[in-house]
Amino acid sequence: MTDRAKNVINACRAIAAMSEELGRTTRRFLTPPVRQVHDFLRARMEALGMSVTVDAVGNLRGLWIPENATGKRLILGSHIDSVPNAGAFDGVLGVVLALELVKSAQALSLPLAIEVIAFSEEEGVRFGFPFIGSRAVAGRLDPDMLTFKDAEDISIREAIEAFGLDPDAIANAVADDNALGFVEFHIEQGPVLEAEHLSVAAVTSIVGQTRLDLRFIGHANHAGTTPMHLRYDAMAAAAEWISKVEPLAQHTDGLVATVGKVELQPNAGNVIPASVEASLDVRHVHDRVRRKAVDDLVEAAEAIAVRRGLKLESTLKMDESSVPMDERLTAFMTDAIGTAGYPPKLMPSGAGHDSMIMAGRVPTAMLFLRSPGGLSHHPDEAVREEDVETALLVGEKFLQRLAAEVR
Amino acid sequence: MTDRAKNVINACRAIAAMSEELGRTTRRFLTPPVRQVHDFLRARMEALGMSVTVDAVGNLRGLWIPENATGKRLILGSHIDSVPNAGAFDGVLGVVLALELVKSAQALSLPLAIEVIAFSEEEGVRFGFPFIGSRAVAGRLDPDMLTFKDAEDISIREAIEAFGLDPDAIANAVADDNALGFVEFHIEQGPVLEAEHLSVAAVTSIVGQTRLDLRFIGHANHAGTTPMHLRYDAMAAAAEWISKVEPLAQHTDGLVATVGKVELQPNAGNVIPASVEASLDVRHVHDRVRRKAVDDLVEAAEAIAVRRGLKLESTLKMDESSVPMDERLTAFMTDAIGTAGYPPKLMPSGAGHDSMIMAGRVPTAMLFLRSPGGLSHHPDEAVREEDVETALLVGEKFLQRLAAEVR
Repeated sequence: MTDRAKNVINACRAIAAMSEELGRTTRRFLTPPVRQVHDFLRARMEALGMSVTVDAVGNLRGLWIPENATGKRLILGSHIDSVPNAGAFDGVLGVVLALELVKSAQALSLPLAIEVIAFSEEEGVRFGFPFIGSRAVAGRLDPDMLTFKDAEDISIREAIEAFGLDPDAIANAVADDNALGFVEFHIEQGPVLEAEHLSVAAVTSIVGQTRLDLRFIGHANHAGTTPMHLRYDAMAAAAEWISKVEPLAQHTDGLVATVGKVELQPNAGNVIPASVEASLDVRHVHDRVRRKAVDDLVEAAEAIAVRRGLKLESTLKMDESSVPMDERLTAFMTDAIGTAGYPPKLMPSGAGHDSMIMAGRVPTAMLFLRSPGGLSHHPDEAVREEDVETALLVGEKFLQRLAAEVR
Repeated sequence: MTDRAKNVINACRAIAAMSEELGRTTRRFLTPPVRQVHDFLRARMEALGMSVTVDAVGNLRGLWIPENATGKRLILGSHIDSVPNAGAFDGVLGVVLALELVKSAQALSLPLAIEVIAFSEEEGVRFGFPFIGSRAVAGRLDPDMLTFKDAEDISIREAIEAFGLDPDAIANAVADDNALGFVEFHIEQGPVLEAEHLSVAAVTSIVGQTRLDLRFIGHANHAGTTPMHLRYDAMAAAAEWISKVEPLAQHTDGLVATVGKVELQPNAGNVIPASVEASLDVRHVHDRVRRKAVDDLVEAAEAIAVRRGLKLESTLKMDESSVPMDERLTAFMTDAIGTAGYPPKLMPSGAGHDSMIMAGRVPTAMLFLRSPGGLSHHPDEAVREEDVETALLVGEKFLQRLAAEVR
């Protein structure tokens, strides 16, 4: 039984070698190694008797329609692009698992049509703009976005054309009404399942997320000649504020809040900082809880700035609402976890995924697999063989249930 | 009377135009504009009947020996190099004022020999190594330092040779036993005199200074998928520590402590910081007080790191003892301030100056002039005409007293 888990992992590792860079995995949207991945997956799809196409944004799509097919098709998939110096499993695992589940569906003679999509873009690395693949399928890719440019001044439109595709055919990529739903298998990319000794979990929601930059503006002065009482130290103010972020999150159930980026001007050891820009990233399943936390933290920053005679500027960078997964499909998934003999764990996703976009078009569910060490976006990213086997068992139970329901 | 103050300021502004860069003042050690400054100052020195030489490190030295000279000579001076994009007065003002005081000594027929030194290097910009000029005169320029290289891979030795000087003659630059002391006039470069509505102050000491880098080492994790209780956030730890620096300094009389440089890894808004390096700069007149403050702050950082399960690394970058000015010369200076009709303010210098180096060789005193806005190392650096006039009056009283004492 575990041979198939081993094979899934080996396939992911083989794909990891298809990279823009020798010795590490970097595979951005429509770069040359994407063709290698397409060839690799296409061969597997065709071996399964699937019909294969590449849509206008470079999503590789394999369709399996069994002779006994009775209803709409299920879409399975995830993305095949990567961050720079990536691991082997983020995204790719979901595509390879999907193909393995097509094989299971065939072995079980399930009367279920299945489309497997290898989304061309999710990470947003090349164009600073994520989810190009799933946006196209969900009908949410605004044609204006085709003008966005990468670091080499190449637009999305040009990148699509250079790959031999037609950017004016993007509308054809949209999932039609014959899709009954989308299911994504993905590594957790966090430490929760490992900490709780669990293999898999069904995802309840993609959490809502606010990102903003706060800039504390004081005065640069000489660190030796300016007495403490004549200072307007932007870093002292920022540190006072940052020290309020962690306790607020700790005291709000399910909230995460992070100051990940801090930039000082002029950033010299012997100069009192003139200004400090600090990022704030706040996420929660409930939008109301998230917005309250953001408001409280911005208010705290303003109070600190006023008391110290500093200025405060606040720039909102992102404000995304929470996206709930489909209740019915998610219930099928937790039932499948239970039927497979595992605790039916539910958890939110703290990160964005293609499922977040697809949920706007079709009923969507997600299954997380444990991430050893909580590690992702890192060459040491891994997945346990036993967890891949669990995910395949759960996937089979899910497909059986779905086939029975749609019959 | 104020014409001479105006002339002093105009001379400083004329020198500010002698720069490596068009439109802003940048004049590093032995770069081409230094020759222009030498020509400008040499003409003034010769007009005063001084004999002029350039020593082996490029210090311009003018000697005035009156016919009625009775004893050792006094050295007056400051530096003529600058930081990048500098103001017009840091250093240069002390040289131009010194020449104006030679004129006064001549007018008053004081029987006092005066050497004016325009030090070639104080800021440490070109070679990352400050006080080259005064070190040579104080006999503290180790020949090994000649191998230090600038950003263009030119050594100090090569720079000296390229300027037409002989690096092997540096020993000849040392002030001989015929020097009775050194006096430097310099802008305060801080806000204290302005806050106290004073023109000038005598300097008691150059404060001692400790600089170190503290590195908090945690774990990078995804800001969305890592719950608060599973984080090892280096920035949260650093912010907690930085928040202890300011209050400790505020509660220790005369202490200044600054965190001017903070660098995060990986410094991305959606990643929990893996490590944060924060600089600490602590200064105080009393070495014991400074060392106690540094010990307390490092101890606090260690306690924070241990409690949070982080590692802490501490790297000492500088540990300079306080350098007291000569008591007798400083008493002459405060007497001179009083005789000139001003409050005899005494204050420490929070910044390093050539006086710090010269004090190791000869009795040394310093007079600070008010810095409008506390501004220095900035193109808007200024000095008030009235304060220049005050400094000239005080300088004259000082010279008269000294001439009387050494007679």
